[in-house]
Amino acid sequence: MNTSPAHAASGLHAQVTDTQDAWNLATGRMTLADIADPALTQALQDTLNHKTKPLGSLGRLEDVALKIGQILGSTAPVLEQPQMVVFAGDHGLTARGISAFPSDVTWQMVENFLAGGAAVSVLSKQNGIALTVVDCGVNHDFLAGLPAGATRPGLQVRKASGAERGTADSSAQPAMTTSQRDQALQHGMELVKGLPGNALLLGEMGIGNTSAASMLLARLGGLDIAVCTGAGTGLDAPAVQRKTEVLREVLALHAEATAPLDALAAFGGFEIATMVGAVFQAARERRVIVVDGFIATSAIVVAHALQPHVLQRCVFAHRSGERGHEFMLQHLGVQALLDLGLRLGEGSGAALAWPLLEAACVVMRDMASFASAGVSTQTDEAHVPG
Amino acid sequence: MNTSPAHAASGLHAQVTDTQDAWNLATGRMTLADIADPALTQALQDTLNHKTKPLGSLGRLEDVALKIGQILGSTAPVLEQPQMVVFAGDHGLTARGISAFPSDVTWQMVENFLAGGAAVSVLSKQNGIALTVVDCGVNHDFLAGLPAGATRPGLQVRKASGAERGTADSSAQPAMTTSQRDQALQHGMELVKGLPGNALLLGEMGIGNTSAASMLLARLGGLDIAVCTGAGTGLDAPAVQRKTEVLREVLALHAEATAPLDALAAFGGFEIATMVGAVFQAARERRVIVVDGFIATSAIVVAHALQPHVLQRCVFAHRSGERGHEFMLQHLGVQALLDLGLRLGEGSGAALAWPLLEAACVVMRDMASFASAGVSTQTDEAHVPG
Repeated sequence: MNTSPAHAASGLHAQVTDTQDAWNLATGRMTLADIADPALTQALQDTLNHKTKPLGSLGRLEDVALKIGQILGSTAPVLEQPQMVVFAGDHGLTARGISAFPSDVTWQMVENFLAGGAAVSVLSKQNGIALTVVDCGVNHDFLAGLPAGATRPGLQVRKASGAERGTADSSAQPAMTTSQRDQALQHGMELVKGLPGNALLLGEMGIGNTSAASMLLARLGGLDIAVCTGAGTGLDAPAVQRKTEVLREVLALHAEATAPLDALAAFGGFEIATMVGAVFQAARERRVIVVDGFIATSAIVVAHALQPHVLQRCVFAHRSGERGHEFMLQHLGVQALLDLGLRLGEGSGAALAWPLLEAACVVMRDMASFASAGVSTQTDEAHVPG
Repeated sequence: MNTSPAHAASGLHAQVTDTQDAWNLATGRMTLADIADPALTQALQDTLNHKTKPLGSLGRLEDVALKIGQILGSTAPVLEQPQMVVFAGDHGLTARGISAFPSDVTWQMVENFLAGGAAVSVLSKQNGIALTVVDCGVNHDFLAGLPAGATRPGLQVRKASGAERGTADSSAQPAMTTSQRDQALQHGMELVKGLPGNALLLGEMGIGNTSAASMLLARLGGLDIAVCTGAGTGLDAPAVQRKTEVLREVLALHAEATAPLDALAAFGGFEIATMVGAVFQAARERRVIVVDGFIATSAIVVAHALQPHVLQRCVFAHRSGERGHEFMLQHLGVQALLDLGLRLGEGSGAALAWPLLEAACVVMRDMASFASAGVSTQTDEAHVPG
């Protein structure tokens, strides 16, 4: 793959090219190969149909098996070295009081991820998923006091220039400049290139980021902000109402931001922009992308608006309890695996769904066929005599 | 625990007693301790509420954590040596053509379980769950050709006297005698006593057993057989209609079998009766009982009719695609974890849900609290200023 060298903050508009796949950040034009392969789909379906079980009896697990087989190009798919990436960033809009928790919780939770104490930490560990946290623009210096050039295990610091405190207050100006946005997109691509394995699980942390996700849904899904706005980390009804009013105001301020990348810059955040870049890179590499809840899906909404083929690489882990997530899934025309009323984010739902993806592969690889097991198939004689 | 010595086939009506828990098979009276413990429930809820996440944000995973904590009596529950038991039996009613597959598939699939090629085999292996198959009355001799007293790894043969070919045709006579039923119940208790660990996953195999489960639901749930009857392994609409007519006829023949254990004897099968015994034993030992789909839940319907406290020990793995399962769950007033349109049985849904139970325990045990992680809690100042 070739990328232009990193540009100055004045205007990074790298043209990314890779075989057929390309993304012109200046025009927003994203090309991704159509990986639908009818012959492979047929082979995958045949494989499933010959397994020792009634046709279709593993329900939506069979859909997952078909999807993973299609992404990895194999009727005996093997998921390798799954990578949970938690994209973290702060939001200037929190100055408007749109969250139930203070902004400091973003960096505090990043420390909690690194220390292994958060939900996504323990669930990733349970399931053998490697965890990386990316500081995409958290209002904190995680390397303070360390020698220059020092790193911390499990942490990547990839802040766009001027993103040290998070996004700007989008009720006063765009959350980020186009240059910052493009840097964030580039950071997402680069970090995925550096990760092993063939599966990417999307996690996130950022007090205020349900607001950004709600606005992206409203703008790119053509929905009223009232149906897109929910309680986030736990607002009560009057606070949800006030949050909705603030978001309506922000949407009006950026009425011209209708193109996907314009909307991304207007509403933020850095963690979502970096995730969009990561999604593109994972998609072009045909990694299995496991989408968590409301925030992670908002990154897919942006990427899908640029290039619908992104969805060919995605498995949606769960339907969140956050109002608006259901409408996001509807907008994308997809169905999620779990429906447990989760509304934590972090990637926790993706980690919880992961064993189902493993199970789908195990079924494809290890289950016996009727022929190999010597089991009789469905017969006409079994019909009830009239 | 004391049990009476096994009785002759003429009438085994053992009185099982264990501390407070007892089951008089003659009267059907089952006693199980009420394990609801308000102080423990409060301690479990407090533990969850102090974890570093918004209150309630892990949704129904938190309900599972509370349930397992309550069963195992610990705020740091550890699931140990989970045991998948696949109860297998044949059904005389298949002579009436109520299944899409021939009866021979029952023993063929048992061989497939033992060879490791079935869905429940590969999914149990994936999740570190030990698998035992119990011949409760399969029309096959799995020990044929072996020296007397020989055993096969992973198989237990526990047939009631005269159950060598499966149940009788319930459209002509009761599926089993009361003596056979009581032997099957006793076998279920005994086999659980011999298993290690603190969790029992219920699986089953038996061509024709959706018919038995449908009739148990209709009789014990007070529902018309039409809403209880589905496609089983894959009947088309006319065949479902004919199956329903046969089952209606069988229900009419055994109109007097209204008590739970009478219904069990009338409709069968041996695998369901053995499972009911296993459920009682697991419940009295406070094992976590993971209930699979339609057939496994029908065993819970019988046990629940005898003693509602059984439900305190049960986690329902999934809502099956088999029509009637939803009504069973409604009848019991419970909600299942997964909803993936599974309709395979075997215990496959229980195995698929198992990682969620593990996750619930991991959250209770390993997640940091707000205090231990130094994370700020929800604040009033975070409300949107008016």
